[in-house]
Amino acid sequence: MSLGEFDLIDRFFKRPVRQAVLGVGDDCALLQPAPGTQMAISCDMLIEGQHFFADVDPAKLGHKALAVNLSDLAACGAKPLAFTLALALPHADEAWLAAFARGLFALADAHNCELIGGDTTRGPLNICITVFGEVPVVDGRSQALLRSGARPGDDLYASGTLGDARLALLALQGQLDVPGEALQVARVRLEQPTPRVALGLALRGIASAAIDLSDGLLGDLGHVLTASGCGATVDTAAAAGLLRGDLARHLGAEQRLSLVLAGGDDYELLFTAPESARAAVQGASQMADTPVARIGRIDAGTGLRLIDAEGRPVSGHFASFDHFA
Amino acid sequence: MSLGEFDLIDRFFKRPVRQAVLGVGDDCALLQPAPGTQMAISCDMLIEGQHFFADVDPAKLGHKALAVNLSDLAACGAKPLAFTLALALPHADEAWLAAFARGLFALADAHNCELIGGDTTRGPLNICITVFGEVPVVDGRSQALLRSGARPGDDLYASGTLGDARLALLALQGQLDVPGEALQVARVRLEQPTPRVALGLALRGIASAAIDLSDGLLGDLGHVLTASGCGATVDTAAAAGLLRGDLARHLGAEQRLSLVLAGGDDYELLFTAPESARAAVQGASQMADTPVARIGRIDAGTGLRLIDAEGRPVSGHFASFDHFA
Repeated sequence: MSLGEFDLIDRFFKRPVRQAVLGVGDDCALLQPAPGTQMAISCDMLIEGQHFFADVDPAKLGHKALAVNLSDLAACGAKPLAFTLALALPHADEAWLAAFARGLFALADAHNCELIGGDTTRGPLNICITVFGEVPVVDGRSQALLRSGARPGDDLYASGTLGDARLALLALQGQLDVPGEALQVARVRLEQPTPRVALGLALRGIASAAIDLSDGLLGDLGHVLTASGCGATVDTAAAAGLLRGDLARHLGAEQRLSLVLAGGDDYELLFTAPESARAAVQGASQMADTPVARIGRIDAGTGLRLIDAEGRPVSGHFASFDHFA
Repeated sequence: MSLGEFDLIDRFFKRPVRQAVLGVGDDCALLQPAPGTQMAISCDMLIEGQHFFADVDPAKLGHKALAVNLSDLAACGAKPLAFTLALALPHADEAWLAAFARGLFALADAHNCELIGGDTTRGPLNICITVFGEVPVVDGRSQALLRSGARPGDDLYASGTLGDARLALLALQGQLDVPGEALQVARVRLEQPTPRVALGLALRGIASAAIDLSDGLLGDLGHVLTASGCGATVDTAAAAGLLRGDLARHLGAEQRLSLVLAGGDDYELLFTAPESARAAVQGASQMADTPVARIGRIDAGTGLRLIDAEGRPVSGHFASFDHFA
């Protein structure tokens, strides 16, 4: 059955707005930011073959498309407010759209983040979400967590677990052999990542810099170091501990480290904080109910050093993810 | 030559921001709306084969991708502030990107609208822009022009010229035979539409409702009537006068009317205003240096009536544009 463009929007995506001044259905949506706040804005485009498999469950795809955007708000310490959705579809498949909308709105509702506008068109499947969040300005200073705030001597932390999404991808591509049970665990992380919104909010005023882990730990850490003009030392033993134990036991030491350092698609937070804030970081972790682990420190000068548990240098090539490399 | 994703952004799209708090290069951009304003947000996705030909000049495509978004701000009476750009590219072609960025930024600079973030990925060519504008709130009332404000007795107006973009499309597809010179004129309108931003701003506090003409006059008028709960009468003689004279003389009467009423892709403004505001509308037109023509009136009740210069009913089927029809 074929649906018209406007029926499609009305039927699957138009819902009354609660916080926005005006939602779906006019030339523009209208948002009225609270006085004394800044608006954080991020945008991610997901494409079949690049970011998901053609046969992915559309409900999971709806979740992931919003999750990767909420993860950017989390990395900025922004409270989710609203999002727009642009959707190119090869055809208007009602069952697919219903499931996609269900997955999308379940996550949106969990974060009180409402759909305020967008576009639909015919074309190769493409999902582009732009998300809007709120960051307070206190005493004239933005509370946003930026990539540029890391300072020499700061501790380096990562949240949650790393490498499981890439492990699932490699296993699904037949490049890695893991038991079905382990694959199922990892696949949830690949297909339905958890944006660390609560942690990002809890780290306001505590973390000195933050980024979300989408391209892999080393690559994303590199962005922080470039923006902050610093170097870093990563404790590979601590980092390797970030791979889930039930997955790690199926892998060799080098595979484990490679997945953690260059995995990508983790959507955890990588952040820095002064040594004096260790108790505050643990408090934020508990408040957000999200584990965090200290995996290194920020150095003066530049460059990224990997060390083992005894402080000896570790060498190895751990490529990060680049869509055009 | 192949460029990495981050090189690509740095090289073609990263520019210092002037108005935003933070632009391209972090997890989120940051905007700080002026006190007492609302943020107008719109989003359009352009796809090869649906919205432009594969061989279109990339500079013109850069212009059009932003123009159609600015047109939504114009229809809302919003002042452009910033935009995000998500771009899926089959490959990173430097010459193509340089030309695309040139066309994009030329229009952006003309409207003081800055690029603050986005995404690039490999995939079938797809351009998704989300645009942000500012609308003042005066005495607690938003100055945004909405589709829902038309009232019985209001005059109905359209800006500029209509039908030329569709004429160019039909001629390029070989469905209509027009001389090369006329085609060139029309083709500029198809490929480089002018968003009526100045007119939208000038109509604040004057127009009762507005929409931008992207799907065709009758289709877009239908959206206004549905949102406003009104009907309308369109003077087809006045409407037919909106086709440029140098194009009209190559066409029959029925073709002219069809192009004007159902052409699409015009990016002019369709708006309503009380009869008492006729002088104010002409003043806004002059201030914005944009011609406007009165082409009908809003009626009580529902339904859309077409009449000729003598007020007699005109019948005919003028289909609007729907990506999924």
